[in-house]
Amino acid sequence: MSTDTTGTAARDEGPRPGDPADSPFVRACRRKPGPHTPVWFMRQAGRSLPEYRKIRANVAMLESCRRPELITEITLQPVRRHGVDAAILFSDIVVPVAAAGVALDIVPGTGPVVTDPVTTAADVERIRPITRDDVHYVDEAVRMLVGELGATPLIGFAGAPFTLASYLVEGGPSRNHTKTKALMYSDPDLWHALAGRLAEVALAFLKVQIDAGASAVQLFDSWAGALSEADYRRYVLPHSQAVLAGLADAGVPRIHFGVGTGELLTAMGEAGADVVGVDWRTPLDIATRRVGPQRAVQGNLDPCLLFAPWPVLEAEVRRVLAQGRAAPGHIFNLGHGVLPETDPDVLTRLVALVHELTARGNGRS
Amino acid sequence: MSTDTTGTAARDEGPRPGDPADSPFVRACRRKPGPHTPVWFMRQAGRSLPEYRKIRANVAMLESCRRPELITEITLQPVRRHGVDAAILFSDIVVPVAAAGVALDIVPGTGPVVTDPVTTAADVERIRPITRDDVHYVDEAVRMLVGELGATPLIGFAGAPFTLASYLVEGGPSRNHTKTKALMYSDPDLWHALAGRLAEVALAFLKVQIDAGASAVQLFDSWAGALSEADYRRYVLPHSQAVLAGLADAGVPRIHFGVGTGELLTAMGEAGADVVGVDWRTPLDIATRRVGPQRAVQGNLDPCLLFAPWPVLEAEVRRVLAQGRAAPGHIFNLGHGVLPETDPDVLTRLVALVHELTARGNGRS
Repeated sequence: MSTDTTGTAARDEGPRPGDPADSPFVRACRRKPGPHTPVWFMRQAGRSLPEYRKIRANVAMLESCRRPELITEITLQPVRRHGVDAAILFSDIVVPVAAAGVALDIVPGTGPVVTDPVTTAADVERIRPITRDDVHYVDEAVRMLVGELGATPLIGFAGAPFTLASYLVEGGPSRNHTKTKALMYSDPDLWHALAGRLAEVALAFLKVQIDAGASAVQLFDSWAGALSEADYRRYVLPHSQAVLAGLADAGVPRIHFGVGTGELLTAMGEAGADVVGVDWRTPLDIATRRVGPQRAVQGNLDPCLLFAPWPVLEAEVRRVLAQGRAAPGHIFNLGHGVLPETDPDVLTRLVALVHELTARGNGRS
Repeated sequence: MSTDTTGTAARDEGPRPGDPADSPFVRACRRKPGPHTPVWFMRQAGRSLPEYRKIRANVAMLESCRRPELITEITLQPVRRHGVDAAILFSDIVVPVAAAGVALDIVPGTGPVVTDPVTTAADVERIRPITRDDVHYVDEAVRMLVGELGATPLIGFAGAPFTLASYLVEGGPSRNHTKTKALMYSDPDLWHALAGRLAEVALAFLKVQIDAGASAVQLFDSWAGALSEADYRRYVLPHSQAVLAGLADAGVPRIHFGVGTGELLTAMGEAGADVVGVDWRTPLDIATRRVGPQRAVQGNLDPCLLFAPWPVLEAEVRRVLAQGRAAPGHIFNLGHGVLPETDPDVLTRLVALVHELTARGNGRS
């Protein structure tokens, strides 16, 4: 038993049941041993759950992200159903951008659509810094959630500057990000002004969630994998770094994730992540070599494997867990978000499998 | 001067001006020195060229791939305009599949749409083996082209089994390839029957082109990058290998390319490629380490860089060429196809730049 009476040091002394900051999930993010490998799923809140589709039946997406009771209920649904080791706030990466004054909507079947895409410095200037009041519904939802979740940690999240900028410059989802890259290459000052402004928005949005009690944050740079490492380092890394460095003293682990980022994993770790998320293309042992021993990894089952027969799925889960043992900390997850047509019962069974295979004594201890 | 009178051995003795099999492009594929680094562009035939849009004005895509005169003219257009080191046959990867009896169309703005997606063994059985007669228009076009092109080599091409299968199973272009992967995982026998049949179709299509005079072939596995290496090796590699092994004695270099294949480059080389195509995400020096010293590399400028100011583009071209010097042979190309909105004059200038920067004495010799 610890005789140290300082709160900070006591945190490292042993398990504190009931404290989300000492949960298996947060411990793995901190590269500390835990009772089992923690598991949660990107996009677990929403999409594949019938109870989600029911509650969203007559509510537009953006509207649903602005109602604290709805955010809370949707965030809790997968925790109740699957027994995952962490909740992730139900929201959308464009929520803080809309709060910053950008006119946009989330169109079913398409995604975010920006009314007036960004092309000038004046457009950038119109993106206002945001305060807690601008996203009070998120603040309220997080406070409610922390009360409801008890020992289960809540992950807050935001979109990273590149991915947000791509939506704003392209005007919506893009396959090739042509206009975004053209802007980077042809007007780097304007690009850096835009990405810098979006970094401020993302940082403020994450701080609101941490102040309200989130136990960790994930910065999603969903489309960063479209960039070469040279372009990533030149145009994107400084801005993602600004977001993550701004949270260095916040006391919660920072996860950084993108899709198709095999060649960027080293740089994304350098952005200031405690945990680097990895998609299914890069095995976790290789990913671990790229991100280095000072960071945990998260991932990385192909979401399409949830449509496989159980023995195939189970074999792949074992492979992911085995490769994850190369890492100093591993949070089990998919390599990208849950696909809408996924059978939720498979997710529930998968959580139980990961827990069973990694329970202290069977695997990592 | 050689005293060897056997044709085969004489081929290696020195430059033979006017012979496409001894062109800078084919020499680089063979990892032999040449007068400059050869350059061509995926999707150079079509899309960005006004003379292409004019000639295609009242002709549907699939129809345009079945008219020898049109194929020939469209294939020649970028050679005349840009002075590239190779022509690539104007066609579409679904052309041989349609010739094999699969009902499909190429829908503007969407891509290939398959009338009855493949779900059963009977569907696979209906995909017939193809002969020269089934694609006589391609045979005729290649023969005309070889006459017109003189010393410039013609690259034949086909889609690889996985990419073709994805179109057939999904019914069209797919973001996540969910149905295709679900089929692999849940009914591997049916999957292997389908991929095996498509390998036969691709091989026959490439043989027609080689028999008619093509100087090289490229097997496009455009969507292979959606797979983990484990799945690629289990479900895809044997079928791509069957195609490329079937051409081992054909006497022409075999290029193998996919997008987002950073983690698959070793395996794609093992598929039997003389040249591995690399997208812009993986620097060519790293790609060279992955594919090994027995293969050349092709690539890998980000197609979006064609929208950059010239000094930015030039710096990136120099970077690609410098990284390509790590390879035993380098064919300069984009990392993916020319985007439709590209200014063709930039392509022309880019060809001249690559030639100037790599002319014997300035760079690789």
